[in-house]
Amino acid sequence: MPVTGPEIERLIQLLSKLPGLGPRSARRAVLQLIKKKETLLAPLAVAMADAAEKACICSICGNVDTQDPCAICSDPTREPTTLCVVEEVGDLWALERAGVHKGRYHVLGGVLSALDGVGPNDLNIGSLAERVEKNGIKEVILAMNATVDGQTTAHYITDRLEGLGVTISRLAHGVPVGGELDYLDDGTLAAAMKSRRPF
Amino acid sequence: MPVTGPEIERLIQLLSKLPGLGPRSARRAVLQLIKKKETLLAPLAVAMADAAEKACICSICGNVDTQDPCAICSDPTREPTTLCVVEEVGDLWALERAGVHKGRYHVLGGVLSALDGVGPNDLNIGSLAERVEKNGIKEVILAMNATVDGQTTAHYITDRLEGLGVTISRLAHGVPVGGELDYLDDGTLAAAMKSRRPF
Ligand SMILES: [Zn+2]
Ligand SMILES: [Zn+2]
Repeated sequence: MPVTGPEIERLIQLLSKLPGLGPRSARRAVLQLIKKKETLLAPLAVAMADAAEKACICSICGNVDTQDPCAICSDPTREPTTLCVVEEVGDLWALERAGVHKGRYHVLGGVLSALDGVGPNDLNIGSLAERVEKNGIKEVILAMNATVDGQTTAHYITDRLEGLGVTISRLAHGVPVGGELDYLDDGTLAAAMKSRRPF
Repeated sequence: MPVTGPEIERLIQLLSKLPGLGPRSARRAVLQLIKKKETLLAPLAVAMADAAEKACICSICGNVDTQDPCAICSDPTREPTTLCVVEEVGDLWALERAGVHKGRYHVLGGVLSALDGVGPNDLNIGSLAERVEKNGIKEVILAMNATVDGQTTAHYITDRLEGLGVTISRLAHGVPVGGELDYLDDGTLAAAMKSRRPF
């Protein structure tokens, strides 16, 4: 039994499909949106239509942008021979916000997972090998998540790129900056201890 | 420094203003939306435009609907002499989902709060008294949250309606102290409604 008008019910139903929003928070969000109809709901409708029209996936690296190739792939000042490989676009954006990588990227679109039935052909690994082979890539930085699947994927890619004359590195594991030892899992502590450096 | 195209950045920025979504979950949501451009992003843009055009606040009770008077106020089968008074539209929707009230509603638009500087004139209390006086209302059910401000508001309304010959009741205690209606399950709401007591 609908509680409110069909256009509003439909908006609640669609919004509740977003990650992080259940039906309950979708209802709250919709009431908030209607309260701020002119300043939030109407602009959001326009922004969504704009994004639906303009958003595209970079045919080179897999980034999400409003141009193809994306701004990073099109930027001549970005080091073209260093590729940072990430699982998802969100990871690429996180690294960009941190400003820690001056080269280009390659988005896999996931990780290998026996459980979820994700194999090498389901990921952008073939296109990675092709870029490395054809574009004179010198270094590939594997920035997978520090999960079992992430590390399995990193190993697979290392094997796959063997013999192509490219240096392969991965992000260091260790104590997060600002992190407290007491809250870290044993694996992280072991990795941090193992990769300890002269002070 | 923007990480992606302006239309996408704008969408992230607007979405992060929704309750329950911070910048981080807004970025996740936007990536999800772009992944499901045809099935989610485009329909959501349309649904938001529709809602922005159609949504309105009922001039009688304060409910949010796509018609004014709202479907509840327009429904001749709803008992017209029993008013359930709620703080917010979300509470009205929660009671409707539970299906525990067969009368009409009145949305206050908040609660009295010395701290937040909310006085009687900031709430729809005058219009409540007017409805009671002019429309032959026999019972007013106070369904405020079981918070200090909610109960203060209930007391204020009871005083205000004194002498108008209306029975005033409140939801049974069963509503957890400090709890908010919108968080409760249907069974609890039904029990609280059934055991409502003279105020
Ligand atoms: Zn790109
Ligand atoms: Zn109404």
